[in-house]
Amino acid sequence: MRSVTCTAPVNIAVIKYWGKRDEKLILPLNDSISFTLSQDQMCATTAVSISPTFTEDKFWLNGKEESLENPRVQNCLKEVRRRASKRKFEGSDEDFLSWHVHICSANNFPTAAGLASSAAGYACLVFALGQVYGVEGDLSSVARQGSGSACRSIYGGLVRWHKGELEDGTDSVARPIASADHFPDLRVIICVANAGRKKVGSTEGMKRTVQTSRLMQHRVKESVLLRLDAIMEAIKEKDWSSFCDLTMADSNEMHAVCQDTFPPCVYMNDTSHSVSSLVHQYNDIKESQGSFSQKVCYTFDAGPNACLFVPGVVIDEFMTLLLRAFPPSASQNMNDYVRGHQTQTMPVSQAYLSLLDDECQAGQLKFIVHTKVGEGPRVLDDSATLLDAETGMPKVTNDSA
Amino acid sequence: MRSVTCTAPVNIAVIKYWGKRDEKLILPLNDSISFTLSQDQMCATTAVSISPTFTEDKFWLNGKEESLENPRVQNCLKEVRRRASKRKFEGSDEDFLSWHVHICSANNFPTAAGLASSAAGYACLVFALGQVYGVEGDLSSVARQGSGSACRSIYGGLVRWHKGELEDGTDSVARPIASADHFPDLRVIICVANAGRKKVGSTEGMKRTVQTSRLMQHRVKESVLLRLDAIMEAIKEKDWSSFCDLTMADSNEMHAVCQDTFPPCVYMNDTSHSVSSLVHQYNDIKESQGSFSQKVCYTFDAGPNACLFVPGVVIDEFMTLLLRAFPPSASQNMNDYVRGHQTQTMPVSQAYLSLLDDECQAGQLKFIVHTKVGEGPRVLDDSATLLDAETGMPKVTNDSA
Repeated sequence: MRSVTCTAPVNIAVIKYWGKRDEKLILPLNDSISFTLSQDQMCATTAVSISPTFTEDKFWLNGKEESLENPRVQNCLKEVRRRASKRKFEGSDEDFLSWHVHICSANNFPTAAGLASSAAGYACLVFALGQVYGVEGDLSSVARQGSGSACRSIYGGLVRWHKGELEDGTDSVARPIASADHFPDLRVIICVANAGRKKVGSTEGMKRTVQTSRLMQHRVKESVLLRLDAIMEAIKEKDWSSFCDLTMADSNEMHAVCQDTFPPCVYMNDTSHSVSSLVHQYNDIKESQGSFSQKVCYTFDAGPNACLFVPGVVIDEFMTLLLRAFPPSASQNMNDYVRGHQTQTMPVSQAYLSLLDDECQAGQLKFIVHTKVGEGPRVLDDSATLLDAETGMPKVTNDSA
Repeated sequence: MRSVTCTAPVNIAVIKYWGKRDEKLILPLNDSISFTLSQDQMCATTAVSISPTFTEDKFWLNGKEESLENPRVQNCLKEVRRRASKRKFEGSDEDFLSWHVHICSANNFPTAAGLASSAAGYACLVFALGQVYGVEGDLSSVARQGSGSACRSIYGGLVRWHKGELEDGTDSVARPIASADHFPDLRVIICVANAGRKKVGSTEGMKRTVQTSRLMQHRVKESVLLRLDAIMEAIKEKDWSSFCDLTMADSNEMHAVCQDTFPPCVYMNDTSHSVSSLVHQYNDIKESQGSFSQKVCYTFDAGPNACLFVPGVVIDEFMTLLLRAFPPSASQNMNDYVRGHQTQTMPVSQAYLSLLDDECQAGQLKFIVHTKVGEGPRVLDDSATLLDAETGMPKVTNDSA
């Protein structure tokens, strides 16, 4: 039996992926850029075992056995095996490609909270399969076939997913463009909003946008291209203020084309817009003080959660303000409300306090995650495996999960 | 003394005016099209008197004396007097152009509710001034200089505001394009939402959109032009279903460019999106039944209020559903909750009831106005005047208004 257990991170795009040019191969209409987040707070964990004694392929997700027939999982599995078989002909002697596989995956964060769990999950699956089958080279184009944005979780730091030009998608790959500490001591604050109405899923939503939004044509042909060039320059120059403005503008443009979709796809809610407004007002003060490097920026995926990037130097100040604007409700426990890194409450000046809405209501957020930018997938040591080394079965199952 | 009292209607754009090419002359970047609404539910009333005995120009708005120095009011007054002076040289013998003017204006609906009160107000002012000074010909380009969309309130039914090409704005005028009964028995339902955060005013908002939104360029250069042609065709062909889709798409596009503005201008709130979603789901059922002429459409101005156009044949059904989805709260009185025309509650089929959100909350709307499409400004008879025929002073004042 060959076994490996790996973890892979979540990533958050600052230049958004929204719209495919090929549904089946998952090829995007534009390049996107993301931060990979630290795995300390959020990660997917996947164990893969292959053995000549297994009688069938098996798959457990968050403790529950699932069908392996999902075409996206199958695509990943087939592609890793295809690459492994190429390698085998080059010298390996074991016939492990005919062995069945057991896969056991789990997220350490709520799948339902809209925290890009599929990106981490598919990146982890593909990375672990690559390890167990001994496949070398870039795996991002394999992960892409599981979930588009998963390709960016294959690397740490700042990552660019190149849309590629080829019809077969082989050049649609992710590449690291800057290290995790490129903008030093950057904090990532995820405000998990209490969602109301059910939303259109992102696969369906982006399809509908491409089909119905005239503004989307303009985004893809012109606007996002200009912004990609500008943000690459801001990254190169470590120009945090421009990076912030470009990140917020791209998030806004994505949600604009969603609103322009027919019928509209609305992901941000009143809470999302309140967070956005707080950030703009906070930045107005920072700009008026000439403190451009202390600006904060937001980005929103296909859901109401705000993801904020906050320089470490102002994290205590900003979190104090954020918690005043969005306090937990009476039934929420403060220890559970802010997860991950802790901050110190501090006195903030009247200029900042005046930003707070008179009507600010407790309980608009479910919880807040305080994390950082981080590294790519990693291999855990054997003691951490999710699959029993003898039987190849999950060590813990939870069929009610 | 010469006196006149007039009323003028509100209008609601179906192809939106958003963005000026000239701030001072109030010249728009694109043509817009609107329905003029009935004056039975909402109108502005303005009395104008001129007399050789008046010692100064005076202005009362909603019972309170206001300065006449507002440049937009001054522009309207100057332009009407200029046109009157041209006429005078052609034959009039009275020197009434040197007389002072008393103006008294009032709206019969809450100014603060975001119901396009400035459009009705300026249309009424200009129409009344035109009457008292005996100015003939089109007054829409004068009303435009008070408030852009006011030019459309000079006419009834369906009205098109041509953006014009000339730098002096003389060809930026409104023209009626179809009568009030063009789509027969059409009902207009205004859902006045409980607004939360303070919004950016529309003058400031559209300026910011023009300056910062890349998508706005595409709307103005291409998208809105295609939609204008398509909706003119739908009006000509009385194709209600296409008219609905185009109206909703243009509202969505306007709010998309607002979201794409930096910082974003967000006018729709969660309640607005819930109304929008209900309309789309209602239309899905109508389309699946082949009842295209029974579709409903929404449009949103620079605020959270939904304006819905509902064919008379389904008004009872639709209102029953709307009131189930957005019931008054315990503290709201049903008689005050729906204003204007009344409807009959009726049994609605399970297909429609299943559209209702489980979490539908009472009290999301302040009130609902049920009105119709209507005619342009009119002259009231002398008994209805707001200014005393002897003194030229307001008959009723309310300094606390």
